[in-house]
Amino acid sequence: MFQFACEATDGAARVGQIVTAHGPVQTPAFMPVGTAGTVKGMTAEAVRATGADVILGNTYHLMLRPGAERVAALGGLHRMMDWPGPILTDSGGFQVMSLAKLRTLDKDGVTFQSHLDGSRHRLTPERAMEIQHLLDATITMVLDECTPFPATEAQAAESMALTLAWAARCRSAFVPRPGYALFGIVQGSVYADLRRACAEALQRIGFDGYAIGGLAVGEGQARMLEVLEATVPHLPPTRPRYLMGVGTPDDLLGAVARGVDMFDCVIPTRAGRTARAYTSRGVFNLRNARFAADDRPLDPACACPACARHPRAYLHHLFRAGEMLGPMLLTWHNLRYYQDLMRGMRAAVRSGRLGEFSAAARAGWAAGDTG
Amino acid sequence: MFQFACEATDGAARVGQIVTAHGPVQTPAFMPVGTAGTVKGMTAEAVRATGADVILGNTYHLMLRPGAERVAALGGLHRMMDWPGPILTDSGGFQVMSLAKLRTLDKDGVTFQSHLDGSRHRLTPERAMEIQHLLDATITMVLDECTPFPATEAQAAESMALTLAWAARCRSAFVPRPGYALFGIVQGSVYADLRRACAEALQRIGFDGYAIGGLAVGEGQARMLEVLEATVPHLPPTRPRYLMGVGTPDDLLGAVARGVDMFDCVIPTRAGRTARAYTSRGVFNLRNARFAADDRPLDPACACPACARHPRAYLHHLFRAGEMLGPMLLTWHNLRYYQDLMRGMRAAVRSGRLGEFSAAARAGWAAGDTG
Repeated sequence: MFQFACEATDGAARVGQIVTAHGPVQTPAFMPVGTAGTVKGMTAEAVRATGADVILGNTYHLMLRPGAERVAALGGLHRMMDWPGPILTDSGGFQVMSLAKLRTLDKDGVTFQSHLDGSRHRLTPERAMEIQHLLDATITMVLDECTPFPATEAQAAESMALTLAWAARCRSAFVPRPGYALFGIVQGSVYADLRRACAEALQRIGFDGYAIGGLAVGEGQARMLEVLEATVPHLPPTRPRYLMGVGTPDDLLGAVARGVDMFDCVIPTRAGRTARAYTSRGVFNLRNARFAADDRPLDPACACPACARHPRAYLHHLFRAGEMLGPMLLTWHNLRYYQDLMRGMRAAVRSGRLGEFSAAARAGWAAGDTG
Repeated sequence: MFQFACEATDGAARVGQIVTAHGPVQTPAFMPVGTAGTVKGMTAEAVRATGADVILGNTYHLMLRPGAERVAALGGLHRMMDWPGPILTDSGGFQVMSLAKLRTLDKDGVTFQSHLDGSRHRLTPERAMEIQHLLDATITMVLDECTPFPATEAQAAESMALTLAWAARCRSAFVPRPGYALFGIVQGSVYADLRRACAEALQRIGFDGYAIGGLAVGEGQARMLEVLEATVPHLPPTRPRYLMGVGTPDDLLGAVARGVDMFDCVIPTRAGRTARAYTSRGVFNLRNARFAADDRPLDPACACPACARHPRAYLHHLFRAGEMLGPMLLTWHNLRYYQDLMRGMRAAVRSGRLGEFSAAARAGWAAGDTG
């Protein structure tokens, strides 16, 4: 059975475990993004070695290439990628609106052209469920409309109504299987009343977990955290809460403190490919000339291969020389840093010290690297 | 001490071990190319996992970026790359002639402009020794002129004379250290008399090993093997023999049968980045549409991660999607295939069955994948 057990709390923050058909997930959890069936620059074994329990796959990318039916014929996403652990797939709606061409939204779904080859596709709530079933997603997300920011309250309400109608259709179309889950998505933009109404309406439909969508889209961290404070109390304590597409390490501290259990974000992987390192002493750009002769480890507090085995000057050299190993090692480091941060937060919540932990982490980032 | 021990022979072929300051090398050995301080797309740990004992570094690339003095300040190439095993570095001469701009060759050395930034540099026999010392190369190569092909016998003789003069200067400039070695390079183009004269002259200078250069430059496999047959008998049996820049799997079979102990080549790594797989059933291009739905392992005879953990269709998908993991996995596979081939040849020589082994390997390549 798909289950969530909260094991300890510290204020609104909580630590727990999700049990799935593909193994357990310690929460709060960060999910590396494996867009097209691979976490970019990482073998599945390396992703596991960073400490990740669960990864995210993108329905939009996978339905276009290699195709959901192809993935199913290959035994599902887990087998194809060699990731036996849990996989959450988004519904494709967000990428359709941000990547696809010639989108037409109607009350039944969205028709669009592939950004790859211009081929025409249609995504409905029912097809989104079917695709994620074919991919063998452990956690399936409902098809929603990610409300653009800014939106008037009327626009946000209209968008939310569509999301709720689709959520009900997804619930009907989803095929329950032991250890598999369907999550609803709370929309409502920055309007607390809408967020609450959406959270309550989704619970009447009934989901295995609840995501908070439509954030980190330009509203800023302060408003994002306000929306969390207005939303989380209206979600059931017995179900996992997933903040979609978030965020920086500081965002994660703030959201965990407000009761979020799950996250996904491209930041650590995308940053790793562009020489940006997230460390206990803040963010460094390793292309910077100041690292050219720096023989120290990237982050002495980190045990990843980049930090344990090489000087900073080597990482700098790899990026300057355009060598693949630069993005590979720095992606590994960033994912490890994110997982270490989650591990640290889980331990802190258990000991009732999340506030101290977060303050110490922020002090390290602020202190920088000059000491 | 740097030592070579021949442990068994099968015709001209031999199996043995080189002992170095950085560990042993089983021969015949294939050295993956780590041009700029990294085997492209591979962690050092992954290179080790393929079975490689020794890797090659390129003096030309490293002297330009990050610079030999910088590498020395970081503790040498071994520490910078996290490769504690033996490293052979070429002298830079070949890349100066093939990559650098505005080259001027004189009897004392070569002046050139960097292909990276146009900066001016000079490489002499003495500086080539100094650079490789700074890099901490286990095996240093003399500065030579790689005779272009085709060359008249007079041109080849003139070029060879320069190589010999530089070899003597390199021998004087090289700083002997226990477990470190300096190799001479036999030139002479396709002229058997020149090859023999060069081999004998180099032995009068005295080196720890002897390389055969100026091959695989357009002369074709048959002439290359003829040159080996005309050269190897004139090299001392007590020293390792290294065929530079070679080759395909079939080249390796042919050269080992003629007494060569060491090889380096970019083929397995470069091919891996361009979707070309070397397998026990021949060479495949994984971008080919015929692999799109192929759920078989790339090479059932191979235990690398690409073969053991994924279907061919996944590798095809990764290359079509432009994902880094495609080149990463296929580089790994090709290097593993090359190392397995060397391992197979070593076992075959020990049991006096290199002929059968080579015939079986060639039959597999010819049979292809349709069975």
